Amino acid sequence: MGIVVQKYGGSSVANAEKFRRVARRIAWKRQQGHDVVVVVSAPGDTTDDLLDKAAELTKNPSAREMDVLLSTGEQISIALLAMALQEIGCPTVSLTGPQAGFQTDDHHRAAKIQHIDTKRVRQELAQGHVVIVAGFQGLDGNGDITTLGRGGSDASAIALAAYLEADACQIFTDVDGVYTSDPRLVPTAARLDEISYDEILELAAAGAQVMQLRSVEFAKQYGVEFEVLSSLAPLPSEGGIEKGTKVVAALSPNNNRVVSGVAVDSKVARITILSLPDRPGVAAKVFGALGKAKVNVDMIVQSAGVVAGGVPTADIAFTCARDDLDLALDVCQEVLTALSGTQLIYDIDVAKVSIVGSGVASNYGVAAKMFEALAERGVNIELITGSEIKISCLVRASQAVEAVRAVHDKFELGKTATGAEVK
Amino acid sequence: MGIVVQKYGGSSVANAEKFRRVARRIAWKRQQGHDVVVVVSAPGDTTDDLLDKAAELTKNPSAREMDVLLSTGEQISIALLAMALQEIGCPTVSLTGPQAGFQTDDHHRAAKIQHIDTKRVRQELAQGHVVIVAGFQGLDGNGDITTLGRGGSDASAIALAAYLEADACQIFTDVDGVYTSDPRLVPTAARLDEISYDEILELAAAGAQVMQLRSVEFAKQYGVEFEVLSSLAPLPSEGGIEKGTKVVAALSPNNNRVVSGVAVDSKVARITILSLPDRPGVAAKVFGALGKAKVNVDMIVQSAGVVAGGVPTADIAFTCARDDLDLALDVCQEVLTALSGTQLIYDIDVAKVSIVGSGVASNYGVAAKMFEALAERGVNIELITGSEIKISCLVRASQAVEAVRAVHDKFELGKTATGAEVK
Repeated sequence: MGIVVQKYGGSSVANAEKFRRVARRIAWKRQQGHDVVVVVSAPGDTTDDLLDKAAELTKNPSAREMDVLLSTGEQISIALLAMALQEIGCPTVSLTGPQAGFQTDDHHRAAKIQHIDTKRVRQELAQGHVVIVAGFQGLDGNGDITTLGRGGSDASAIALAAYLEADACQIFTDVDGVYTSDPRLVPTAARLDEISYDEILELAAAGAQVMQLRSVEFAKQYGVEFEVLSSLAPLPSEGGIEKGTKVVAALSPNNNRVVSGVAVDSKVARITILSLPDRPGVAAKVFGALGKAKVNVDMIVQSAGVVAGGVPTADIAFTCARDDLDLALDVCQEVLTALSGTQLIYDIDVAKVSIVGSGVASNYGVAAKMFEALAERGVNIELITGSEIKISCLVRASQAVEAVRAVHDKFELGKTATGAEVK
Repeated sequence: MGIVVQKYGGSSVANAEKFRRVARRIAWKRQQGHDVVVVVSAPGDTTDDLLDKAAELTKNPSAREMDVLLSTGEQISIALLAMALQEIGCPTVSLTGPQAGFQTDDHHRAAKIQHIDTKRVRQELAQGHVVIVAGFQGLDGNGDITTLGRGGSDASAIALAAYLEADACQIFTDVDGVYTSDPRLVPTAARLDEISYDEILELAAAGAQVMQLRSVEFAKQYGVEFEVLSSLAPLPSEGGIEKGTKVVAALSPNNNRVVSGVAVDSKVARITILSLPDRPGVAAKVFGALGKAKVNVDMIVQSAGVVAGGVPTADIAFTCARDDLDLALDVCQEVLTALSGTQLIYDIDVAKVSIVGSGVASNYGVAAKMFEALAERGVNIELITGSEIKISCLVRASQAVEAVRAVHDKFELGKTATGAEVK
């Protein structure tokens, strides 16, 4: 009993049949005695259709007007979902983001939620209504419509759960939780019962297609624990069991797993600057210039280069997103010229394989076990970096899948849904 | 100089090219030094598409949720039109009905405008913006979205013109004004330079496809004079001339025309009740019962019937909308039985031809001239009714077009765009 916030994405409401299915799922939850608040995204391709319409008129649409345009998508969803619920006899009311009290800053297309005035939502719940709220949108201080940017509906649901002090927050999507690895690459990948904010954040940063980082950061900030579930799973009213992955602040005390997942990121590039003068401040120059250009640098390794004419030199290698490669090369070329480096090389035939888990840093032997797994399959490691809960290895792109499977097997992640334990 | 309110209907913004065209028209008006406020409807078929989506989910959608759904259509229009204007360098801001201050009652799908708080619109005008406002919508006292019902965008524009005390209100549509008759039936039909509220109301009531009655009633109530123009006409910036029909409280003093237009309504039916007792109160019984059943009775004629067994009887004939025929027959059958009338007959093979004009009642010979026109072409008149500014004749449906043309010719309505004068 108590308030449950559910969120359904656009693919869950792509057509009339899916609206009906979502409605049945919501009605069941209400029949269990809960006050149900539902956050919903725009149906299926609606947002893309609206973007197309705008693109026909202008290459540089004003962000304010884009928000007026795009926010209609969720408004269509809330009305249709309310109708689908009313059709099966479930008292329901729909509210736009502004009506539901979402107040944001005025950063159009990427607004941040500043406050939610939950008065109207609570009133409607008190009247026995299921409350359907348009995700992704709010109102700024000028009374203008704002949108939260991609993945914003997840943030809407999590924020609403926080402000309502909800008992549960369920994020329904087209996968039934967070997996130990990408099941398309690793057939033995298993669903995790729970994962911590930090683990999921690192997994996403490592290239796993999980949730929007911003939503998880938001959940962490507000201390909202939520569950990722599949809207495609059999309905509880038809014998299905609600089973997903809980995203929590800290794993249960009885969960002593070390590694939670293995991720691979193939959209990376490596740049190496050869024979830079080996003196203090050189690395700062390189990465300062890259930072200024807003290139996000990931793995960094500096190593001694050749001794040229009696002067010691250093090589600096780093990885960045492949999309940033051209920009990064331009920046590096300037630095190279300024510092009289000899050569700039890059490689896009690489991939980053990472293990993520709360126990990575505190358990001896985790890194060694990963390297061993890779060595056993003949995968060469080109760069290594680590954090408190992550170890990443750069490998040949052609060996990426083999590498992920090797590591996944080695840590026996497919064995149980609770993750692997280091023996 | 001063504020000009323009209104564009859905067919004027059915695709990107039409949005661009409307934008150029608006920008030109602003270049003339006016403060421009634009009310716009949902693009093309958007409203029908949304209705279809709702129909897939429920046969009895809640009116409140329909308003949430349908109001997105105009919101899409305002954003796209604002983008089209910004693209040609015209500073513009879009406002939804609620943002533009439209306050309505809570009669969902047919709400009435109660007040417009024009503060935001005036602020935006003061900043040099063209203000694009979503027609057809507002907010009720509960903070819920309402729509004004069919033709509501015209009402939005006229009300906004009233509250802003605008210098002009221009209603752009796909015809370039009000004609002396339907040009599809009467090739010589001419556009009127001006027409009074009362004339246009009578023309619409007489079956002419002019404007929504409600909007004109609204204009009359608020004393807002407006102009009906074509959005398809050549742009003023490309040599076109703004030329439409002005809808005014009273015709200009120098306009001494008597008849303004000829209308035909083919969607009527005639019902005749034969041999009712000819005593006081019988007509009241018949039309009281019809009124209670909400059948709108139009032309009425009572005449002496046969004398049956020494008792005088009366026949009562009337017309109603063909859509109401079944209901009207049911009601009449009951009355017939109660009053021992002998027979009930109906005829749907009829049409009503009407002349409308401010001078109809005050000029001798107008009615005679109409009857003469019909007689000359062998059109038999089955019923006649008149009001201050209208005379209607019921004729055979097969002779309706011939009748309209005959009358239109007789009053020489095609001769000038200012209407005909009785010589």
